[in-house]
Amino acid sequence: MKRPHFSCLALVTFLGVVALMTAASLHADEAAPIYVKQIPAGYRDWKLISVAREEGTLDDIRAVLGNDEAIKAYREAKAFPDGTIIVRIAWSFDASKENNESFARFLGHPVDRQSFVAGARKNGIQFMVKDSKKYAATGGWGYAQFDDGKPADDTVMKACFPCHQEIKERDYVFTHYAQ
Amino acid sequence: MKRPHFSCLALVTFLGVVALMTAASLHADEAAPIYVKQIPAGYRDWKLISVAREEGTLDDIRAVLGNDEAIKAYREAKAFPDGTIIVRIAWSFDASKENNESFARFLGHPVDRQSFVAGARKNGIQFMVKDSKKYAATGGWGYAQFDDGKPADDTVMKACFPCHQEIKERDYVFTHYAQ
Repeated sequence: MKRPHFSCLALVTFLGVVALMTAASLHADEAAPIYVKQIPAGYRDWKLISVAREEGTLDDIRAVLGNDEAIKAYREAKAFPDGTIIVRIAWSFDASKENNESFARFLGHPVDRQSFVAGARKNGIQFMVKDSKKYAATGGWGYAQFDDGKPADDTVMKACFPCHQEIKERDYVFTHYAQ
Repeated sequence: MKRPHFSCLALVTFLGVVALMTAASLHADEAAPIYVKQIPAGYRDWKLISVAREEGTLDDIRAVLGNDEAIKAYREAKAFPDGTIIVRIAWSFDASKENNESFARFLGHPVDRQSFVAGARKNGIQFMVKDSKKYAATGGWGYAQFDDGKPADDTVMKACFPCHQEIKERDYVFTHYAQ
């Protein structure tokens, strides 16, 4: 009866070790940042959260759009629920010759710096995807950047959370809703 | 028998004059610019056409949104059908202290002019509503500007069409779709 007992103990021990290893592995997964690797479908159709302009080396004009969960949370000033996705699209900041000529005729004098419009896409597309369990290591948000449709390296992505972490009190989201 | 004949002729003449006056009146209505006096419902939910920045005295950052008819026509590069509505919303162009501080920490040096975001609404809301019959006098588009929710005077609105007329070949619409 000893061998079966020993075998049973060994089996229990083995299963216990497996369980511990699995738990450790799950814990490691939770602790490591996870980044979003696929472009969320239909984002160009989402509603407008706000617009912005980055000067300096970024030099773009941008729009921040949100899916329905995002827009609802913003408008009701509630916490962003799991499923929320926010996207930042940026375009080159181009002086509009056509618009400036039209303004010039209207004003009766030449206009050099007046109208700037969105040109080609620039500075990639960025997403924040809310899933409080999956992205627990980065405040419940998964981050993504796509350059020419391809996800940026994880080394690049590691720069996201340290900045967003500064505004934890606003659930890590910089952009305010433009009324 | 002469009087009834005369009366009949007079009546016919009278009716003819009334008909001509009505036609003239209708024609006058068609020829006079008609402006949009009600804010189209739900415009803040519409999809994004593009973003822009106006410097000079306007000094704003803006978004141009379109209803489904507008977006479909833009994306398919087709003529804008009746029912198309395009809206221009503008906000004050505000330096973002919060964003600049975050950039500064990231870059390791102070950042003065970097991030500009949408502040309060500014420069009213403007609409273009397509109805080729109703707005025939202004190229098939009805124009609107609302300041604090109230439609601008017709004298103000008369400035719309002369500028838009310059781009008749693009159906009077300045804004290009931002891909």
